[in-house]
Amino acid sequence: MKYIKDGGITSPQGFKAAGVACGIRKKGRKDVALVYSQLPAHAAAVYTQNKFKAAPLQITEEHLQNGIAQAVVVNSGIANACMGQHGLETAKEMALITAESLQIKTEDVVVASTGVIGVPLPMELITKGIKEASRVLNCDGGTDAAEAIMTTDLIKKEIACKLGIGGKTVTIGAMAKGSGMIHPNMATMLAFITTDASIESKCLQYILKKAADATFNMISVDGDTSTNDMVVILANGLANNPKITMDGQYLEEFEAAIFEVCTTLAKMIAQDGEGATKLIEVEVVGAKSLEDARKGAKAICSSSLVKTAIFGEDANWGRIVTALGYSGAEVDPLMVDVYIGDLLVAQKGTGLNFDEEKAGEILKQKEVKLKVDLNLGSAEATAWGCDLSYDYVKINADYRS
Amino acid sequence: MKYIKDGGITSPQGFKAAGVACGIRKKGRKDVALVYSQLPAHAAAVYTQNKFKAAPLQITEEHLQNGIAQAVVVNSGIANACMGQHGLETAKEMALITAESLQIKTEDVVVASTGVIGVPLPMELITKGIKEASRVLNCDGGTDAAEAIMTTDLIKKEIACKLGIGGKTVTIGAMAKGSGMIHPNMATMLAFITTDASIESKCLQYILKKAADATFNMISVDGDTSTNDMVVILANGLANNPKITMDGQYLEEFEAAIFEVCTTLAKMIAQDGEGATKLIEVEVVGAKSLEDARKGAKAICSSSLVKTAIFGEDANWGRIVTALGYSGAEVDPLMVDVYIGDLLVAQKGTGLNFDEEKAGEILKQKEVKLKVDLNLGSAEATAWGCDLSYDYVKINADYRS
Repeated sequence: MKYIKDGGITSPQGFKAAGVACGIRKKGRKDVALVYSQLPAHAAAVYTQNKFKAAPLQITEEHLQNGIAQAVVVNSGIANACMGQHGLETAKEMALITAESLQIKTEDVVVASTGVIGVPLPMELITKGIKEASRVLNCDGGTDAAEAIMTTDLIKKEIACKLGIGGKTVTIGAMAKGSGMIHPNMATMLAFITTDASIESKCLQYILKKAADATFNMISVDGDTSTNDMVVILANGLANNPKITMDGQYLEEFEAAIFEVCTTLAKMIAQDGEGATKLIEVEVVGAKSLEDARKGAKAICSSSLVKTAIFGEDANWGRIVTALGYSGAEVDPLMVDVYIGDLLVAQKGTGLNFDEEKAGEILKQKEVKLKVDLNLGSAEATAWGCDLSYDYVKINADYRS
Repeated sequence: MKYIKDGGITSPQGFKAAGVACGIRKKGRKDVALVYSQLPAHAAAVYTQNKFKAAPLQITEEHLQNGIAQAVVVNSGIANACMGQHGLETAKEMALITAESLQIKTEDVVVASTGVIGVPLPMELITKGIKEASRVLNCDGGTDAAEAIMTTDLIKKEIACKLGIGGKTVTIGAMAKGSGMIHPNMATMLAFITTDASIESKCLQYILKKAADATFNMISVDGDTSTNDMVVILANGLANNPKITMDGQYLEEFEAAIFEVCTTLAKMIAQDGEGATKLIEVEVVGAKSLEDARKGAKAICSSSLVKTAIFGEDANWGRIVTALGYSGAEVDPLMVDVYIGDLLVAQKGTGLNFDEEKAGEILKQKEVKLKVDLNLGSAEATAWGCDLSYDYVKINADYRS
């Protein structure tokens, strides 16, 4: 598998994209993104588990019942969540206008929104935006689209890679947005993956769910699970590779590539968390089950007290074991080893007299790794998060205004 | 029931207390508290559900197996958690020294600690402190003891009240400490309640558990459940009232008084949360079950995004329904009404065009009430928390150093 320099969602064959400013957001910032596949593509998706599912997710779920999609339309600035019947109508309208502009079926349009909850979408502006985006769609539009889905993100998140499958080159492209209300459950913030791979529909859903669980679902910025999270993958088959199937020989390779793409995006989201100054990676090893390892890693990564300690570059490992202790993971307090970077700071649940200076050096880095060995089994998991800074409070104290 | 002005844990008959500075904490701040009952008292307790139970909790659980206690010893500054065998030995030693100083049984001593995790207790200093405290124990020592259990608390937390039971006056006193790592589960931070009531042992445990679930377990500062949480009640019977029993006529009155004492302490802890500028009270009504109401209220109260919005005095109610949506409570998104103060901002899950100026006025207050009506049933619950400010980050970025 090789990464494609400056690649994105338009790197795979047959995909075009655009990102335009329709006027929802301030200062002419791009706020409508469009992704288009020249052929109807197999599509799979995972969604937020929040009971308040935003209107666009409800419409997208309906449209993806047949497992086929040809375009994705996204607006940023307003989430179109908690708007009752009006929300559903505007989400449907977004799909309809997109379908008309691209001359495709309405039910082949994936709709997504991100931004403030409880505010009506200005349909006039959005209609204008979608029409403009459909006119300027092009093979290099990935970056514009990635920019148009950003809200408080500081860094656009796009990536692409290629791999050989049965003598053909298969390309995968992706974009995502963070960067607050990030604590996904079965799905995450917005992420869109495109590929020209030829793949069975069932296989696509299987891989996406598995990858999302191990990557997007293992990041946390603030412990809040959004109403608008979704990850969608479109596979249009234009690479003409031998079809990837559940029992075929290419499943593993393709799955590994999707995992790597999702991992990279997930880390980008965590690293660009609101107000973040550091990426935190938490590895829990020696767990009895994968579920235990995930629970433990995610609780440590989500703890406000761990996050503020990392911001303060303080080797306060007691907060790490505390989070582990309430995570719900099976833990024997007298068996747990804790590492900050590669420095062992607690062994068998007991504090060591460790080198504070070395710990300080590790904590000064932009990426801080924490490791906990439960010494109970062989399962392991990794979670990613960010520190909690003054700027997180600042950004979120006046987000709406 | 009447509150006693400036009352505390020494208000009930037969209780003495002291708080002294032994040198664990800086600048001669009090750090050892002692509470003593002139008779062995019935005792009940609830503890943290964190799997890493600090050593003093383990020793206290052992000592309270017979339901009897006569003294409570507490140190602040160091939690005596995650210190392995050494931790257990020092906790036992604290009980032993206390017993010797007061000439009571070692197993009648309740031991508690609060402060930094993973650091050994300086037993020489603590021994000196306990001996000094036992010398200065007195009937007005409640305030000194309440001060000695504080860590990052800004305000000491003590309270007392009296009520008539069967022609006799029964007095209840209490003290507690907050103010970070507050997200209790079946118990909370340190709280100690004394009473001269004559009450059945079984009854005492029943009331304490029920009261803790509705009060201490409904507060959250930062979503982190501590290793050291405990609430202990001692009842020495000196009021000479007709015994309060499970099927007797006085249970309800006494229970109501304990509930009020616990509610007041819980609110004091939430209000004094690290960096807090406002107390947040969240009421969830119209729930199908008490559990649903509690889950919903606590999730809203714990959400970083709700907390930062309140800090910023921003009527961002979308975050309230988001938290409700991932709380695990049974919710019909199209039935939910949301109030900020008494201002209805969303009805049937849909945003209203509400008076922003009025919302701003409500949010400027020191106490902000949020209410959610699920419109599904008749169960309700209240949770208390605080806003999330720059100072929370500041306090926790360098807590250890």
